[in-house]
Amino acid sequence: MSKSDIHKNNFKSVFYPKSIAIIGANNVEGTVPYDIVKSILISNYKGIIYPVSPKETSILNIKAYKYVIDIELPVDLAIVVFPSSVCNLVLEQLGQKGIKAAIIISAGFKEVGSVGLEREKQIKEIADKYGISFIGPNCLGVINTDPKVNLNASFARKMPSEGNIGFLSQSGALCTAVLDYAQSKNIGFSKFVSFGNKADISEIDLLYYLADDPKTKVILLYLEEISDGKALMDCAKDIISKTGKPILAIKAGRTNEGAAAAASHTGSLAGSDEICNAAFEQAGIIRCNDILEMFDTAIAFAYQPIPKNNRVSIITNAGGPGVLTTDALIKDGLKLAKFSEETTAIFSKVLPKTANIKNPVDVIGDAKADRYNLVVTESLKDDNVDAVFVILTPQSMTEIEIIAQEIVDVSKNNSKPIYTSFMGATDVAAGIRILEKNNIPNYTLPESMSKSFTSVFNFGQNLNRNGAVYNLDKTQNNVEMAKSILSEALEEKKSYLTEDKTNQLLSCYNLPVLESFVASSAEEAVSFAEKIGFPIVLKIVSDDIVHKFDVNGIVLDIQSREEVIQGYSSIIENVMQLAPEAKIKGILVRKMIPKGEEVILGIKRDNSFGPVIMYGLGGVFVEVFRDVSFRVAPLSLHDIKSMILNTKSSKLLFGARGKNLRDVESLYYCLSKLSELAIDLPQIKELDINPLILLDINKGCYIADAKIML
Amino acid sequence: MSKSDIHKNNFKSVFYPKSIAIIGANNVEGTVPYDIVKSILISNYKGIIYPVSPKETSILNIKAYKYVIDIELPVDLAIVVFPSSVCNLVLEQLGQKGIKAAIIISAGFKEVGSVGLEREKQIKEIADKYGISFIGPNCLGVINTDPKVNLNASFARKMPSEGNIGFLSQSGALCTAVLDYAQSKNIGFSKFVSFGNKADISEIDLLYYLADDPKTKVILLYLEEISDGKALMDCAKDIISKTGKPILAIKAGRTNEGAAAAASHTGSLAGSDEICNAAFEQAGIIRCNDILEMFDTAIAFAYQPIPKNNRVSIITNAGGPGVLTTDALIKDGLKLAKFSEETTAIFSKVLPKTANIKNPVDVIGDAKADRYNLVVTESLKDDNVDAVFVILTPQSMTEIEIIAQEIVDVSKNNSKPIYTSFMGATDVAAGIRILEKNNIPNYTLPESMSKSFTSVFNFGQNLNRNGAVYNLDKTQNNVEMAKSILSEALEEKKSYLTEDKTNQLLSCYNLPVLESFVASSAEEAVSFAEKIGFPIVLKIVSDDIVHKFDVNGIVLDIQSREEVIQGYSSIIENVMQLAPEAKIKGILVRKMIPKGEEVILGIKRDNSFGPVIMYGLGGVFVEVFRDVSFRVAPLSLHDIKSMILNTKSSKLLFGARGKNLRDVESLYYCLSKLSELAIDLPQIKELDINPLILLDINKGCYIADAKIML
Repeated sequence: MSKSDIHKNNFKSVFYPKSIAIIGANNVEGTVPYDIVKSILISNYKGIIYPVSPKETSILNIKAYKYVIDIELPVDLAIVVFPSSVCNLVLEQLGQKGIKAAIIISAGFKEVGSVGLEREKQIKEIADKYGISFIGPNCLGVINTDPKVNLNASFARKMPSEGNIGFLSQSGALCTAVLDYAQSKNIGFSKFVSFGNKADISEIDLLYYLADDPKTKVILLYLEEISDGKALMDCAKDIISKTGKPILAIKAGRTNEGAAAAASHTGSLAGSDEICNAAFEQAGIIRCNDILEMFDTAIAFAYQPIPKNNRVSIITNAGGPGVLTTDALIKDGLKLAKFSEETTAIFSKVLPKTANIKNPVDVIGDAKADRYNLVVTESLKDDNVDAVFVILTPQSMTEIEIIAQEIVDVSKNNSKPIYTSFMGATDVAAGIRILEKNNIPNYTLPESMSKSFTSVFNFGQNLNRNGAVYNLDKTQNNVEMAKSILSEALEEKKSYLTEDKTNQLLSCYNLPVLESFVASSAEEAVSFAEKIGFPIVLKIVSDDIVHKFDVNGIVLDIQSREEVIQGYSSIIENVMQLAPEAKIKGILVRKMIPKGEEVILGIKRDNSFGPVIMYGLGGVFVEVFRDVSFRVAPLSLHDIKSMILNTKSSKLLFGARGKNLRDVESLYYCLSKLSELAIDLPQIKELDINPLILLDINKGCYIADAKIML
Repeated sequence: MSKSDIHKNNFKSVFYPKSIAIIGANNVEGTVPYDIVKSILISNYKGIIYPVSPKETSILNIKAYKYVIDIELPVDLAIVVFPSSVCNLVLEQLGQKGIKAAIIISAGFKEVGSVGLEREKQIKEIADKYGISFIGPNCLGVINTDPKVNLNASFARKMPSEGNIGFLSQSGALCTAVLDYAQSKNIGFSKFVSFGNKADISEIDLLYYLADDPKTKVILLYLEEISDGKALMDCAKDIISKTGKPILAIKAGRTNEGAAAAASHTGSLAGSDEICNAAFEQAGIIRCNDILEMFDTAIAFAYQPIPKNNRVSIITNAGGPGVLTTDALIKDGLKLAKFSEETTAIFSKVLPKTANIKNPVDVIGDAKADRYNLVVTESLKDDNVDAVFVILTPQSMTEIEIIAQEIVDVSKNNSKPIYTSFMGATDVAAGIRILEKNNIPNYTLPESMSKSFTSVFNFGQNLNRNGAVYNLDKTQNNVEMAKSILSEALEEKKSYLTEDKTNQLLSCYNLPVLESFVASSAEEAVSFAEKIGFPIVLKIVSDDIVHKFDVNGIVLDIQSREEVIQGYSSIIENVMQLAPEAKIKGILVRKMIPKGEEVILGIKRDNSFGPVIMYGLGGVFVEVFRDVSFRVAPLSLHDIKSMILNTKSSKLLFGARGKNLRDVESLYYCLSKLSELAIDLPQIKELDINPLILLDINKGCYIADAKIML
């Protein structure tokens, strides 16, 4: 049985234990061991707890055991708060006692350096030996709000309320801030896990657990280190496609300095943030910039349905915020709904003359609940409306709580999402509480409301996208020859491939390298030229000549048999005159590449995500505008198209500025082949095709230059 | 005396009235007139109020007058809450009574269409006649927290506390949300003004008033319509340079849809948002994206000194948030301070071994107040530190309030800014209150803390920038001739200038147009070519020939006398052969432009800001990347440099990608001349120089093509 299957079996004991041993408990208030026992007790846990303490006979009035093995009855879960130096002994005892699940709170492992890393390896080995699954070490603990268990196995100050958001965090201390913030916003959680150094149970195991958890609708993830990016991507794709549950993630350590700070406190190493961004997008993970944005988005997913389309009706009692919301919504790519004639007729009949009955609807400062109710109700009925945004400012006559309650009531009888922005703080607090408690997502800023809705809308649109791998016949790839080219070079301890080997290798994957031939006579040159077709290029081949142009050793754009013969002899003559000592190996004959768009393709290796494919338009676009995009291999056709469209310059391939339509199909093909190559040949450290010349539609493309690093 | 001088005299009566008449007061709770009287009473106003009501004999126990002229003693300020239809009569009475200041709360003016606009004009006329200054109409009122007066002349639900932030808003309803939000954050105000339709007193008058107000340190402005952008810019520049007070602004109506919404509720018309952005930057106005960002930035300015430099020390009790803060700070362009050896020695001696003593300093989850105190104090002492960010997460043992108080105490003895991010909500609330009440700006998000600090830092750096107009000799401009070219064209009802007139006009401003000459003989061509110098171009001139290349009517890159003669005759021959019917006017001789970078310059007219200069790199940069920048004329040298540097492609002028250094000095010159031209010649509606060929350093530039629209 794989370790992840073992975890799957043991998760019930982690989250729904019937009995818990707290190992290392004490009676000193304000210490972690004491706080944890107290947390469990005051959260009204539905089970038995066994404090284990070498010194105390009882903890908080409960009989204490000296060793875990002394406990008479079976125990489901152990919470370990002993110093890291003795955790190995504890784990051994858990094994002997037959306890299969543990939460190791104790710090002093990988994050403190080599001694700690050694300890971490030790406990992991013992856990593997006994089939134990553990969370941590170096974590805050686990919370399960399910009333069946009411478990607060953590030293968080408080137990959150029940909800449908699952939260997973690599940082323990951040959790305390998150719990405090969430409580103030009436945000509930299904499961709340601080997983610390993830020495045994990883974020991927936990993601799968939450995917299966019927209490969890939205999954949040705070990460500093992605140990196995590929696995995380696969897991996310799998969960999203099978369950439709969104995964929202914060990945800290975006900058080099931030990554260094992360390394020093969790011993982790961050990869390139650009690649992480691309990988998340590819996997469907919604990346959030900060904690507030994460919760703003989370409540939208948790509380309201996914909209069918993006036509929004705005209702406000204040013109200014109506304008701000309209600005935000348009900026986010949403649309202002256009009301039907029926709706417009009703608004114009019922609303006061000073009201603005067009979207955004301004019900005017003196609006009471009746106007709000009418406009919200009629908006929801209108087929041209997919969602409703309600804005309220606290004017002296505004019936804040009544309006909140009526929005809640209206929302219960419809399937379109309703979002609110009750602006302000104290005056609107009671109204907001009514909204939040009844699953209406409320935002202080209309801008945050619009942004959150947009995330949900985009997620819904992406759910139906086609993630199939590009359907090309891989059997045509000559993988064996490619491998032998690489082994040969590696045996010769080369750090890169020569030009001809590079071309040979790319040919193995049917990539459009230019066939070339070194002719020893004008006749040979003619016969090869006729074989590959005109126009062609002739170039001197000599180890003694570095700058071929300087000796007039190149003739471009040769169109006919006669020109080949003439070109051949003129090159020989020029070289003999200008570089009489040079040893001539022959004349290279190659197809002349027509003019086209220069693009750059490449392969990089990321520590965490593995083979990464790079794309960008050549020249200034990559270097000045950094207009490049990345995708983790293997690439689906959707990936390929989106990575091209993600660059601003992509317009230039599709006829912008009166340019010709380029042969993007052949570009798709090359990117897909590059993806196959990257996966088949891990010996290649880096590959650059710079440039690939992309011709007009149906005319293909050619590799003008390429480099392969080993 | 100008109206703005009259306002200046009358402002004392608006903000510090000794007596107030409330005209249109009533006894109906929950109505605006009643709420205003009550607001004034409960705010403990230090003066006399006179309710004026045609019906009531007393309002809230105070004797009411039938007409304002019935009041026996002089009155400083009138608050008008009568229906808009009778406001003209009220204004007349104010004039008769000698009241010089009014706040017109009543709606029903410009914002409701043509009838309202007429009413607005009427009251403005009466005010002008009597020298009355008024705020509004269609506004929430005015608040002055100065204890000398304690004035809440508004129908806001509450009076804010005293502070050093002045707030000006075009939207009244937004004010209610702002006041509510500000109260919850313990943010105080000096003056708070809802100026509505600004029919008389404008935002500019109010900005100058706050600039002179010793109680105001930071000025906030919410705008939907900028009636006179140029005046706003001049006012802002003036205030910032003379007083150093920052102006933070939100300009709503950024999108077309948002602007349309704004128009429908204030009758205002928004200009281009891109140009507004440029104008604000140029004027030093800090543009905020939303209300929260505005207050985040405002408290930074209001509470803490401007930092000398951008080296920040981060202190945290949680690794994760330390990483997030580091990421944010680097992204914002700030620097992580490197501690001196002394500081490092102290940290390594005093902090626990598990702590991270490098910046960001992690004092570890169990840190109490002593560790925070030490690290903050020592950071502030370190010469390598310019500012301190303190992060706190509420862990079970964290002494939140004590730490807050100690930060406050430490801050009192130093001149470097301290910012905090006490993360969470309820648990940290009491600590945050201590910080806020003692002028330590606190942020839920470390990202907002970093962003706000960055705004203050950048403002400080810009305070010293040189805004002088580029020092060129304007007397060389032949303005008279330029004007006569334009009058001539306008008389002929032309909508654009012909090529030769365009060149003539640009020459009047010494812009580098290419001199050209139509030769009737090869000799003439030679003599002109020798005058302007080789290489030159020859082109056929004939009204019958549209495509000169098609008839081989162009010869490029002519290097010598002989080539001129040869080129001349070959063109004549070609044309006679290929277009035998064409009437030949002669052959144009012009300098051949060497290769260089193509840039685009232009003039546009903005409804609100007037003449605007545009700059961008030619080709794809403008069209695909929209890599252009704008500045409002006249341009200072700083404006010119910053508008070029604001484009990403500007690197290409300064040697990026192995390109030559271009002659940017000549580009500065052209932009400056264009700015002069734009101001001198308002008849020009639009001007496009596309492209200007910018040569290598010291080689100048040439206009290859230009169009002038009238």
